[in-house]
Amino acid sequence: MKFGGTSVADLDRIRAAALKVKREVDAGYEVAVVVSAMSGKTNELVAWVRDAANPPGSNSGGFYDAREYDAVVASGEQVTSGLMALALQELGVPARSWQGWQVPLKTTGAHGAARIEDIDTTRLDQKFAEGLHAVIAGFQGIGPDGRISTLGRGGSDTSAVAFAAALGAERCDIYTDVDGVYTTDPRVERKARKLDRIAYEEMLELASLGAKVLQTRSVELALRYKVRLMVRSSFNDEPGTLVCDEEEIMESKVVSGVAFSRDEAKVTVAGVEDRPGVAAAIFGPLAEAGINVDMIVQNISAEGLTDMTFSLPTDDIAKARKALEAAQASGALKFRTLIADTDVSKVSVVGIGMRSHAGVAKKMFEALAREGVNLKVVATSEIKISVLVDRKYMELAVQALHDAFELEKD
Amino acid sequence: MKFGGTSVADLDRIRAAALKVKREVDAGYEVAVVVSAMSGKTNELVAWVRDAANPPGSNSGGFYDAREYDAVVASGEQVTSGLMALALQELGVPARSWQGWQVPLKTTGAHGAARIEDIDTTRLDQKFAEGLHAVIAGFQGIGPDGRISTLGRGGSDTSAVAFAAALGAERCDIYTDVDGVYTTDPRVERKARKLDRIAYEEMLELASLGAKVLQTRSVELALRYKVRLMVRSSFNDEPGTLVCDEEEIMESKVVSGVAFSRDEAKVTVAGVEDRPGVAAAIFGPLAEAGINVDMIVQNISAEGLTDMTFSLPTDDIAKARKALEAAQASGALKFRTLIADTDVSKVSVVGIGMRSHAGVAKKMFEALAREGVNLKVVATSEIKISVLVDRKYMELAVQALHDAFELEKD
Repeated sequence: MKFGGTSVADLDRIRAAALKVKREVDAGYEVAVVVSAMSGKTNELVAWVRDAANPPGSNSGGFYDAREYDAVVASGEQVTSGLMALALQELGVPARSWQGWQVPLKTTGAHGAARIEDIDTTRLDQKFAEGLHAVIAGFQGIGPDGRISTLGRGGSDTSAVAFAAALGAERCDIYTDVDGVYTTDPRVERKARKLDRIAYEEMLELASLGAKVLQTRSVELALRYKVRLMVRSSFNDEPGTLVCDEEEIMESKVVSGVAFSRDEAKVTVAGVEDRPGVAAAIFGPLAEAGINVDMIVQNISAEGLTDMTFSLPTDDIAKARKALEAAQASGALKFRTLIADTDVSKVSVVGIGMRSHAGVAKKMFEALAREGVNLKVVATSEIKISVLVDRKYMELAVQALHDAFELEKD
Repeated sequence: MKFGGTSVADLDRIRAAALKVKREVDAGYEVAVVVSAMSGKTNELVAWVRDAANPPGSNSGGFYDAREYDAVVASGEQVTSGLMALALQELGVPARSWQGWQVPLKTTGAHGAARIEDIDTTRLDQKFAEGLHAVIAGFQGIGPDGRISTLGRGGSDTSAVAFAAALGAERCDIYTDVDGVYTTDPRVERKARKLDRIAYEEMLELASLGAKVLQTRSVELALRYKVRLMVRSSFNDEPGTLVCDEEEIMESKVVSGVAFSRDEAKVTVAGVEDRPGVAAAIFGPLAEAGINVDMIVQNISAEGLTDMTFSLPTDDIAKARKALEAAQASGALKFRTLIADTDVSKVSVVGIGMRSHAGVAKKMFEALAREGVNLKVVATSEIKISVLVDRKYMELAVQALHDAFELEKD
């Protein structure tokens, strides 16, 4: 059972979460609870780290020692784990807290963004055998240098799935501030419906497309180890959404949901040579600058020249321009001009059933055309079709697609 | 160098403390810094622990699991240690943070009030050899169960002295919110003078008598390992007071200081049998109730009965009454009546020179008599004379004694 920051924001919420744990214990389960820092704590600690390393007037350029960042920031989950153990004890549930280094959860040495290498469950298993349920500080482990490491923001979901896999858990319940995974964001389409089940692959597409329910890494891990994830609310007792293997989903619909990402930008590198190696010359410098390029389209060539178009988060547009102009200045890349459109959004339909059904793209394009929505870029994968549209049409496009694929129907 | 909670209360103060560390590094020292939690943090964490373990309406009677208390509360020093390491790095001082379990500082298993068993400095020494100064989270270690342990309130002073001893430090500088040890509290006697030096034994008497500059345990440890302690201010660059071996103090004065403790109570157990074992029958139950009895006087016996008088902190008076009445009810102790006077204060003169000088008591009693201060109880040790007086005379008594022993003179 994993509780996010808003679910443990204060003592009353920690107690409410402890009651949910007790319910599972009373049902006969051995429970490992993974907790985040109390809501707002991580931001406070990160701000202190930045202030300590980069006081006003400093020239250190934002640099800070990631090992010290980890030592400071991991304390947030440490506090919650102790408080949750105490709240459980108060309810008569024998429990103890575990820090990452105590388990140990071993990670790589990439402080601040470590990856999990191994979870040794020997000590946890011993304590389970003594009847002690576990409350584990999420988001953290111990690196090869014997120092606290953290898994990066949102790492508590990843911790939870990793522990579920290592312990051979029957289920991994992710308690959060939404009550499940919806066909689309209810704030955009009020007919959005909560899904009972969704396949890992679909959840991955939705997570990376901007539905902020689960961290992408945690879903990848769940898929690899076949951990059944239940996404559910901390604030009610509704059943939530099960993220599971597609084989557990009978008669899955062709399209499961409509995802969107509001703040995208479209960049066209116009007038590049149409020859092998030109894509590498463009996307190499962007990758080195740490920019995640998403959709990529190459236009039809004319007179030995072509245009390369791609999408990226709006926030990265200045960095991208700088990287490409530097490549041009160095002679590594030749192009005529850069055209940036920062006023677009991405809308996608996702569904594992697409694999065996033709006509999804046709239905999608027709629905958007009926509403007069122009498509600026199209990209597809096996279980997803994404389009870039003018931002002002985003809500309309989501609603049109939700209707066209009848997602409000169970 | 140890910095207390008010000296690291926010990022600006942490930076100011880091500058003091840099000064010592620039002077050629290898420095181990021991830090407390940021001022107010420990109280916040303790309040959360109490709330988690004893929610409103709970029947658990204030009980909480001390292991979880330790896991939660130790996070305060953890945060400061990381922030201080970052602040030092920003000043160009190579530094890293150490949690108690990383050193390791090994303690007994008495969670919440652990005692230090051993400090293994191998890893610290390795890092010093690499040029890395140490920032150590005070107040904490690791218990035999592999879990975080804390040394009890004020334990950061004790950590600092223990590290100074283990590392063979030349000096242990305790930075705090006062600028040294005074002949008495300047708020009571404005002629109070800062001492350049004071012997361990004198400091012990002053610390346990209510001069809240240093924790008693830390002075005991400094005495045992001959660690030279410098008490000085975080907020200025004055030299402070050196707590050292009496051999380092030339021509020590007969009396070094006047200590006082405002909130004392005097209890007389009247009409007890005058026979061996009666003291044990009185003080046994009090010790079991966790009450620290201080001055003890037995009055002259008459008709086989005697009166036993002792002092204790006012806050403990109800507990003491309960313990003694329970002993009476069980038949273990017989007495006629209990008389409690909750309106007294303790005033003491302390000085290592007393050992070789007669007449200190005479001078003290004369000075108090001149001011019309009545003595209610007198107790002496080798280097201290304490009296109980009516609380309303406390300030007057302190001033009279400060004058009589000419403590304002260097």
